[in-house]
Amino acid sequence: MSVYADKKVLITGGLGFIGSNLARALVDRGAQVTLVDSLIPLYGGHPFNVEDIADRVRVNVCDVRDPFAFEYLIRGQDYLFNLAGQTSHMDSMHDPRTDLDINASAQLSILEACRRINRDVKIVFASTRQIYGKPDYLPVDEKHPIRPVDVNGINKLAGEWYHILYNNVYGIRACALRLTNTYGPRMRVKDARQTFLGIWVRRLLEGQTIQVFGDGKQLRDFNYVDDCVDAMLVAGASDQANGRIYNLGSEEVINLHDLAQRMTGLGRGGQFELVPFPAERKAIDIGDYYSDFSLIRSELGWAPTRDLDQGLHATVEYFSRHLQHYI
Amino acid sequence: MSVYADKKVLITGGLGFIGSNLARALVDRGAQVTLVDSLIPLYGGHPFNVEDIADRVRVNVCDVRDPFAFEYLIRGQDYLFNLAGQTSHMDSMHDPRTDLDINASAQLSILEACRRINRDVKIVFASTRQIYGKPDYLPVDEKHPIRPVDVNGINKLAGEWYHILYNNVYGIRACALRLTNTYGPRMRVKDARQTFLGIWVRRLLEGQTIQVFGDGKQLRDFNYVDDCVDAMLVAGASDQANGRIYNLGSEEVINLHDLAQRMTGLGRGGQFELVPFPAERKAIDIGDYYSDFSLIRSELGWAPTRDLDQGLHATVEYFSRHLQHYI
Repeated sequence: MSVYADKKVLITGGLGFIGSNLARALVDRGAQVTLVDSLIPLYGGHPFNVEDIADRVRVNVCDVRDPFAFEYLIRGQDYLFNLAGQTSHMDSMHDPRTDLDINASAQLSILEACRRINRDVKIVFASTRQIYGKPDYLPVDEKHPIRPVDVNGINKLAGEWYHILYNNVYGIRACALRLTNTYGPRMRVKDARQTFLGIWVRRLLEGQTIQVFGDGKQLRDFNYVDDCVDAMLVAGASDQANGRIYNLGSEEVINLHDLAQRMTGLGRGGQFELVPFPAERKAIDIGDYYSDFSLIRSELGWAPTRDLDQGLHATVEYFSRHLQHYI
Repeated sequence: MSVYADKKVLITGGLGFIGSNLARALVDRGAQVTLVDSLIPLYGGHPFNVEDIADRVRVNVCDVRDPFAFEYLIRGQDYLFNLAGQTSHMDSMHDPRTDLDINASAQLSILEACRRINRDVKIVFASTRQIYGKPDYLPVDEKHPIRPVDVNGINKLAGEWYHILYNNVYGIRACALRLTNTYGPRMRVKDARQTFLGIWVRRLLEGQTIQVFGDGKQLRDFNYVDDCVDAMLVAGASDQANGRIYNLGSEEVINLHDLAQRMTGLGRGGQFELVPFPAERKAIDIGDYYSDFSLIRSELGWAPTRDLDQGLHATVEYFSRHLQHYI
């Protein structure tokens, strides 16, 4: 019997990539799930993401920047998975104000609403490895200095810390997971706003050449979305997680050239090319990155269980069936 | 001949405590100084702070949250000393939105204005040791983990990082000084919003008992305002400082009990008492704190030169003459 059975769960960004996969896992565990999503076209939310569970979730379309809606929605919730965010690093540089409004200001409004209306809610916040910036050492653990290289990283950092602060000062149980590259069914593939892997999948399926920036030697780690969802469920269920910040990550580390090679070797054809880094991307690139996730493994017992080949297969298989909904 | 001679200098928070003292130092060096201040009553700005140099500075009353005014004011400036901020830790908890608007959002607007209109300006940003939170070790150097214990610390951190980011990505020369407790003539003494030393000075001069929270054993370091001003001038003049973050601090470390004893021993009478910590202050208290400032000493050659006794004497002497303007 899951701890989530019959529990009321709110997911911001609930029609998005990770939110919709999390929703599926939660309804399977008997939770009463409400999904909040702004459906801003440039972000990850998409009604099709929950089409197969539409009769088992409640959907409320609104923006996390709308404090009044949130005050209503947070009432009586047992869990809040707070996943709504502006994820594009480039967009955060072109429009820093919007990134700040969503990733910092709205987070503060959400927490203020919890403080006023529902201090018993347990919160899991989706943070990002982006706040570490260019690593001093690898793998990057949670003690690594924080040195964001773009506006997105700074605002996500503020959003993350508001959560930890409200845990520490007001006893509103909250923890943060610093996600690394997450991929899988229902991710945004229209462009690279959520992850570059999205646009790679699209190009592969459309028979276009995948573009790898630079020499392709940049190392990265990847989590298949089901592993990421598992981490959220575990963190939500554990009181040991309260006030804690955990890296997610993977034992499998791969450079982008080899990743492109793997993708074009999935049996669906495809090709890739190395192209020079666009200057504005180079300015905020973090070089090699992969996480040390031993803290969450030792404290909460989480580790990823899906390997990259499995994950890529499942992802490409999903989008080969549903691509028309996502482009 | 000072590097600031005939240079155009903008100071935000220019009618405030540190800003007005900095303005005095700059006009003495021949700079053309414009002071921007919102004169929000709860903050540190006060026209009397520049009464003696009123004919040598230009004053523009406006809020840093006003992006249009700033776009006009930043044109053609050689230096920006960006000191405007909400400084009260308690107010940041009661009204987190305002703290965010001033300490984070407005900073982003200021930097965006620089990016669009004046990329050649050199910026010195006044940050705070508050972003370190409760120290893991003492003295606290710049490598210490960042763990803000109040909303103010989180927003100041974001504001600081926007500056470093715009330096790194856009080449707008900027550095940040993490100030510790700064005191001296022209500080806010009406209440404890800027520093608890302010209200202590007021109570001393009004013959009231100084209240020391807790057991009085908390260690702190203090910079006399002229030393802080020196650090800003040095940082502004140095290109080595670009993209850097420096702690300020002092060799003299003292606990609050002993500090109260020193103040009541200045020859102006006075008494103090230990009182229990108010609960809401305790929740955000950082315990012992003092800085390691060896980085700015080795890189820029700055070290404080006024000792605590000198500084306290000068401070109390100033307010004994001018208290009526400040209460």
